[in-house]
Amino acid sequence: MALNPDRLFPSDPATRKIARRLYETVAALPIISPHGHTDPRWYSEDAAFPDPATLFVKPDHYIFRMLYSQGVPLESLGIPRRDGAPVETDSRAIWRIFAGHFHLFQGTPTRLWFEQPLEDLFGITERLSAANADRLYDSIADHLAQDAFRPRALYKRFNLEVIATTDSALSALDDHAALRASGWDGRVVPTYRPDFTVDPEREGFAGNVAQLLAMTGEATTWQGYLAAHRARRAFFKTMGATATDHGHPTAQTADLPQIEAERLFARVLRGGVTAAEAELFRAQMLTEMAGMSIDDGLVMQLHPGSVRNHNPSIFHGFGPDMGADIPSPTDYVRALKPLLDKLGNNPGLTLILFTLDETSYGRELAPLAGHYPCLRLGPPWWFFDSPEGMKRFRTIATETAGFANTVGFNDDTRAYLSIPARHDMARRVDCAFLAGLVAEHRLDEDEAKDLAHDLAYRLAKTAYRL
Amino acid sequence: MALNPDRLFPSDPATRKIARRLYETVAALPIISPHGHTDPRWYSEDAAFPDPATLFVKPDHYIFRMLYSQGVPLESLGIPRRDGAPVETDSRAIWRIFAGHFHLFQGTPTRLWFEQPLEDLFGITERLSAANADRLYDSIADHLAQDAFRPRALYKRFNLEVIATTDSALSALDDHAALRASGWDGRVVPTYRPDFTVDPEREGFAGNVAQLLAMTGEATTWQGYLAAHRARRAFFKTMGATATDHGHPTAQTADLPQIEAERLFARVLRGGVTAAEAELFRAQMLTEMAGMSIDDGLVMQLHPGSVRNHNPSIFHGFGPDMGADIPSPTDYVRALKPLLDKLGNNPGLTLILFTLDETSYGRELAPLAGHYPCLRLGPPWWFFDSPEGMKRFRTIATETAGFANTVGFNDDTRAYLSIPARHDMARRVDCAFLAGLVAEHRLDEDEAKDLAHDLAYRLAKTAYRL
Amino acid sequence: MALNPDRLFPSDPATRKIARRLYETVAALPIISPHGHTDPRWYSEDAAFPDPATLFVKPDHYIFRMLYSQGVPLESLGIPRRDGAPVETDSRAIWRIFAGHFHLFQGTPTRLWFEQPLEDLFGITERLSAANADRLYDSIADHLAQDAFRPRALYKRFNLEVIATTDSALSALDDHAALRASGWDGRVVPTYRPDFTVDPEREGFAGNVAQLLAMTGEATTWQGYLAAHRARRAFFKTMGATATDHGHPTAQTADLPQIEAERLFARVLRGGVTAAEAELFRAQMLTEMAGMSIDDGLVMQLHPGSVRNHNPSIFHGFGPDMGADIPSPTDYVRALKPLLDKLGNNPGLTLILFTLDETSYGRELAPLAGHYPCLRLGPPWWFFDSPEGMKRFRTIATETAGFANTVGFNDDTRAYLSIPARHDMARRVDCAFLAGLVAEHRLDEDEAKDLAHDLAYRLAKTAYRL
Repeated sequence: MALNPDRLFPSDPATRKIARRLYETVAALPIISPHGHTDPRWYSEDAAFPDPATLFVKPDHYIFRMLYSQGVPLESLGIPRRDGAPVETDSRAIWRIFAGHFHLFQGTPTRLWFEQPLEDLFGITERLSAANADRLYDSIADHLAQDAFRPRALYKRFNLEVIATTDSALSALDDHAALRASGWDGRVVPTYRPDFTVDPEREGFAGNVAQLLAMTGEATTWQGYLAAHRARRAFFKTMGATATDHGHPTAQTADLPQIEAERLFARVLRGGVTAAEAELFRAQMLTEMAGMSIDDGLVMQLHPGSVRNHNPSIFHGFGPDMGADIPSPTDYVRALKPLLDKLGNNPGLTLILFTLDETSYGRELAPLAGHYPCLRLGPPWWFFDSPEGMKRFRTIATETAGFANTVGFNDDTRAYLSIPARHDMARRVDCAFLAGLVAEHRLDEDEAKDLAHDLAYRLAKTAYRL
Repeated sequence: MALNPDRLFPSDPATRKIARRLYETVAALPIISPHGHTDPRWYSEDAAFPDPATLFVKPDHYIFRMLYSQGVPLESLGIPRRDGAPVETDSRAIWRIFAGHFHLFQGTPTRLWFEQPLEDLFGITERLSAANADRLYDSIADHLAQDAFRPRALYKRFNLEVIATTDSALSALDDHAALRASGWDGRVVPTYRPDFTVDPEREGFAGNVAQLLAMTGEATTWQGYLAAHRARRAFFKTMGATATDHGHPTAQTADLPQIEAERLFARVLRGGVTAAEAELFRAQMLTEMAGMSIDDGLVMQLHPGSVRNHNPSIFHGFGPDMGADIPSPTDYVRALKPLLDKLGNNPGLTLILFTLDETSYGRELAPLAGHYPCLRLGPPWWFFDSPEGMKRFRTIATETAGFANTVGFNDDTRAYLSIPARHDMARRVDCAFLAGLVAEHRLDEDEAKDLAHDLAYRLAKTAYRL
Repeated sequence: MALNPDRLFPSDPATRKIARRLYETVAALPIISPHGHTDPRWYSEDAAFPDPATLFVKPDHYIFRMLYSQGVPLESLGIPRRDGAPVETDSRAIWRIFAGHFHLFQGTPTRLWFEQPLEDLFGITERLSAANADRLYDSIADHLAQDAFRPRALYKRFNLEVIATTDSALSALDDHAALRASGWDGRVVPTYRPDFTVDPEREGFAGNVAQLLAMTGEATTWQGYLAAHRARRAFFKTMGATATDHGHPTAQTADLPQIEAERLFARVLRGGVTAAEAELFRAQMLTEMAGMSIDDGLVMQLHPGSVRNHNPSIFHGFGPDMGADIPSPTDYVRALKPLLDKLGNNPGLTLILFTLDETSYGRELAPLAGHYPCLRLGPPWWFFDSPEGMKRFRTIATETAGFANTVGFNDDTRAYLSIPARHDMARRVDCAFLAGLVAEHRLDEDEAKDLAHDLAYRLAKTAYRL
């Protein structure tokens, strides 16, 4: 049951041999993790992780969405209810449910993200099942209690060179500050995520804007609001940030005359906006943020296309991020035009585009990134951050955008222990893709070796200015 | 020319060996056919099939659409005209045309669906051509005249465990009744298909509703109409039905307040509705049918996204189902929301989704089915019920939805003799897919063996409650 | 570094052997080039090509779009500015920039289109780089100065049987006339491209229509305008044309009553039309052109779905066709219906459809072409004219449309020296696809051999009536 050293490599022997040779040159490279959702407190406090269920099951929406789809109530997995009604609190009971349903993850990346840390960190080479659930629980729990499995020790063991967290524009970044003050030599940087202060349709928007203005001492005007973002971005930069991140329902951008933007700002603050007004405000803010990026050098990331909280029962019962976000068709060509018309040729801007709509890889994203100097393509995201998803991305995007217009890998995860497995998966799949090109004589092996290094390390570092 | 035992398996020798091993464990499993279009009269009367052209060519829209696309008039294939104008009646002449154009099916699944029964049933291992058309015609005709090639004997020979037909909500199910009365031990079950009584844009809608109400003694009111459907569903259940089937232009659902639904029902009965009103009525009826499914346990199937009768000359000349139905982009995420908001978390509901828009596999269907407990993904449908179509489905859907949220195979055919070939194709392609995962060390072979059994047999049986 | 004889063949040894055998039977077939953008003057004047940069870099938007995306200013590549501001004029300097960025084309078809003529024509087997830029420049320049590298000699060397150019409806076809008068035995035929006289949103539309009417002596009426097109088409036919080509933003067609078409024509001529009016006029003209095709036998090509001149800075600075055209989602099913309702069953019409939206291959184009006798599928176009693009086209379209509803290959290029490499790529990829079918026992090798010949030669010749 141990992980096979050739996993994810093509089965054709000649191609596999090439993939193996390429992989050997990148397997041990340090990890650049420019976009993710680990908790900065882990690094600042360096406390031991709690039990296996709290570490692996409860925070992972990939896992509980699959269990829920097969009839497992979220309450039984210990997901807290908004109304405070009781949910399962026995971590071992939760773990047993997970173990009993582990076969559901056959053929999914979750399987690989879970089994690799089990083997690499805990020496477990058994497949999880109802039969061995308790034994594996105990073994993992024992390991987690040891100092070698605390966040900072794992950072070193994982060979991380830098890891970015994602932080609310309103965050004081206390953990980041504490971490810097601690003198620890790991590099954990924040990312400026302003969505809750930019999207009039998010709960608490007006309050968030008020807080943003209060934090920065700015007036409740359009200019004050923009100045507040500038100030917060500058603060994030002092704390190590090199990037911003924007999770919008669509990729729509706008370039309003100032007077219209001022009026729109006043309207969205009053509340009760229409969907079209909210969309226009978000759209305008993307263009504003791109302008600020040119000024302060923060790389801009856009993650559009998720219909959030599709299941109202789950949202009302448990809140957001409960596995009920569903992709939808996403337009880039017309949506990005206002921003690109204004700033798309500015050499100071880097805008990294992500998608949940794979039809855009070939039809929109690769042609756009293969032309505009500001655009780069982020790696396959969320549901597509998987062996087949990565393969489709490279197969479809490369012929038009090349490799240089992509940015390497993001692990995009809050599952800390899975980070090496995720990067390893990306390195294997990219080496497999390159090996296919070499085997079909479309690329020479020395070129493939260089590209493997780019995809595993250099492109992320350069694109994110890390 | 004989069928190769390794057909449809990957050419890489190591992977092929695994595929072969997996296939050997499922090749002989009984066939579960939970969705199809064979004629219940075949089983009740058990008469010999007529000549080869009437069996293979005239009823198969895959075949005559391809011939028509290359300039063969439908009249020459014996397709009856609505105006009664003369068409070819000589079956041998029709067969010769088919034979002379058989090369058109190179690279299509029709080729395999046709050649496998020829070899397995009639011992024919020659490729059909103008040269051997007459000889093959005679050989097939001779076989068809024998008792061993009557429907019930073939049912046994095909190793069918159960086969579902698709029946109008208005059908008295006389053939099903006769079949049950006959004491024959084959299991042929009806499926409740209410489209003609639910879609205001179908010809004869008002008359169909009147007939539905008359059959059940219900009043011409919204409540009476719903009660009539409930009554008919209950009757279908007594005749063995376990499922309903809904062929709608879109996946739109609605959840109207009762008073609005009543008004809309009155409006659609009066006739002259707008396209939007018709769409809203169909949408409301999907939600109503889902509610009834929770009550009576019938599994619900939704087949949306076909633009029916795209070619008006063909429709006016020959009627519907003449190979002129074309897919179109289909939204699920927003369309299904009203139904899912109301019933999507109800453990009693199973809603099986099909698509003619493959872009929805990864972007919408797999994420939806990987979350909602009521949703399952039907197998690739219609134009995608093919080796490459099946491969794309598994490759794209599995990483997000897993295997357990899919329902095995449907043959969906009226081509009775092709049923074993269709299931065999699905089993081969699924085993090839699983073998690829094993060869790349993404799945262990014992797991693949279990999954092959699930995909070939167990999932269909469970999902359709058969 | 020399080109490998097995390039683009599958790496699996058994499949590769079959691909090689198939390829050997088609590698030396004459080239049919039914759609492209070479300059007829090349053939009529037969002058030597200028320097390497002017031949390979300056006219190739695939090349400069990639360089631009990585920060290379178009001025430095010698692309003339509309305002006459100075740009780089030193061809050697331009070549050095290209050479220094040549790694950007790794994994793209441009790489193969460039290296194959270098080896085949100039004997260069080194990978271009900053280090050898000057040496390669000199070597290519020396060759270009020789008579053997003039257009007519290359036509013979390339084994061209016929090549079509694309010509404005307003062109006097002087070069074609001179060529025919010259007595040279190469076959270079024009193609009727009326876009600038048909699209009210193109710059200079009214003037173009006026010129069209003046050239043909027709009145400024709807009927005169149609008669003018008929006259120009007839003239193109006398010069060898067998086809028309239509580059529209969408595939929308219309079938207006004559009186409405007359009014619309008057409106578009007055200028200041709305986007909807312009779309309707283009839509009507596609149906008119299809009607004319039935009358005069010219094959009709439709290239929809490109958002032209997406980058206004580039458009204002350098003009159209500067690598800033981006695909967008394209509907065929509803858009083509008016034309197909009217003419889709007419045996005299051939309408070849292209797409920049690959989602339509399986969902719309293959089902349409697998039914309508007038429809054929053009080869993968523009961004998809690549090994993976071709593979996806065959894999997705064939199972529904077969091979006979496709039309072989188009090189669609103005890069004359790359034409053999482009056809060779298509032949290799098609043979690889066929070999895969043979290796999986889905096709017999004798059939594959026939089909390879069809795809490489016969289908293009037949479909384009050449």
